[in-house]
Amino acid sequence: MEQNALKYLENDRFAALAGIKLVRAEPGFAVARMEITENHLNGVNRVQGGAIFTLADFAFAAASNSGGIVTLGINVNISYFKSPKGKVITAEAKEISSGRKICGFNVDIFDEDKVLVARVSALGYKLGSEL
Amino acid sequence: MEQNALKYLENDRFAALAGIKLVRAEPGFAVARMEITENHLNGVNRVQGGAIFTLADFAFAAASNSGGIVTLGINVNISYFKSPKGKVITAEAKEISSGRKICGFNVDIFDEDKVLVARVSALGYKLGSEL
Amino acid sequence: MEQNALKYLENDRFAALAGIKLVRAEPGFAVARMEITENHLNGVNRVQGGAIFTLADFAFAAASNSGGIVTLGINVNISYFKSPKGKVITAEAKEISSGRKICGFNVDIFDEDKVLVARVSALGYKLGSEL
Amino acid sequence: MEQNALKYLENDRFAALAGIKLVRAEPGFAVARMEITENHLNGVNRVQGGAIFTLADFAFAAASNSGGIVTLGINVNISYFKSPKGKVITAEAKEISSGRKICGFNVDIFDEDKVLVARVSALGYKLGSEL
Repeated sequence: MEQNALKYLENDRFAALAGIKLVRAEPGFAVARMEITENHLNGVNRVQGGAIFTLADFAFAAASNSGGIVTLGINVNISYFKSPKGKVITAEAKEISSGRKICGFNVDIFDEDKVLVARVSALGYKLGSEL
Repeated sequence: MEQNALKYLENDRFAALAGIKLVRAEPGFAVARMEITENHLNGVNRVQGGAIFTLADFAFAAASNSGGIVTLGINVNISYFKSPKGKVITAEAKEISSGRKICGFNVDIFDEDKVLVARVSALGYKLGSEL
Repeated sequence: MEQNALKYLENDRFAALAGIKLVRAEPGFAVARMEITENHLNGVNRVQGGAIFTLADFAFAAASNSGGIVTLGINVNISYFKSPKGKVITAEAKEISSGRKICGFNVDIFDEDKVLVARVSALGYKLGSEL
Repeated sequence: MEQNALKYLENDRFAALAGIKLVRAEPGFAVARMEITENHLNGVNRVQGGAIFTLADFAFAAASNSGGIVTLGINVNISYFKSPKGKVITAEAKEISSGRKICGFNVDIFDEDKVLVARVSALGYKLGSEL
């Protein structure tokens, strides 16, 4: 991964607050993980939707910015299928299309049993400047 | 607001971690706010997308659960328009349609200057049990 | 409405095939309608989702192109709430945010009883060339 | 494929109007295709977004109804990446998650060169009655 991109991701304080770790990042692909703690739970003790989203969105940011071009998320669509089981959830982001200015990503979110708990479709806008 | 719904919202630990406050909640409508701190920033010092989403999702949860029927978010679509300015962002969730099992909400997210920075469309599924 | 934009909309052959009429169009706002015929029905005699979408998307195209700048739809999110009643459905598209390259629209789709049957959130990308 | 499901799909008049052919359908998977004619074009001679959506939505309907349980589309999110080249576009719908009432599908839309021109994420609601 491009060095400035790595700095950019390490400097993401909301991701840090949410306990998100970057597992892997290369242009067009990234994996991030989150160990579930009490901090991630909602009022009925499920993993909160915003926590799952934030993990997915961070994987998307890692995959879309790893090449060194600043890419902003402009639309993110998340569907929630299951409540995650186990202590860890993982998000895998993958580029599915890349145009001059717009790129599309798929992010699959799995629980510890490798069950797909949520799916994200995301659109990025390439600012064109370098990180 | 129904008392168990209030407890449910107060017990949301990820919303608490994100510094989200419930301003108002009644069946079909809710307002939540977040004071921006360093914790909410991403690697280029903008408010992180997951923080904005979490605020909007919490307002949606408040509006959709305030009547006391457990309602799960099943799809949330967010478009990001502007980077928020100022120290506070506010999310207003409003029911736009309610069926027997499925309900639809709109959530507008404003910055301190009342500029619309993001828009959420959300679908809820009514579990049918009470909180 | 700008004259080339009008020609562009009148030359939309899929919208014509679907029986869609433009009721009103100005920069940032448009209304389109569709009289329901047997052609619009799916296998269980409801108005087909693609017909409803096409109406909404056309209203979005009218609202986003009326100023004369070519704007492409890049993401469209539709939620279906009710099966339309009556003989006509109407879509009202309204700009909710406009940036240099990206714009956001809301489209409400009503049946003949003015019931909200579907809601669209759409993102446009301004090509920058003129129609 | 279940026989009533086949009748249901063959009786879809809007899909027929749009020139859509079912190539394959089984529970959780379906392929549909559309030969591009002048009828499918918008005002600037590209394949109209509603035509692409209708093809994808039909593939989703085929995949989600093939087992014989009536499944309604409740949310469909489409991202458009490229203008299709060639004379045919094809949509492949695949179930990615299935719960008791809610199911999720992915639909990839390819042009004649096998380029991914659009991607759909769709949520279905299982009515529970049989077709």
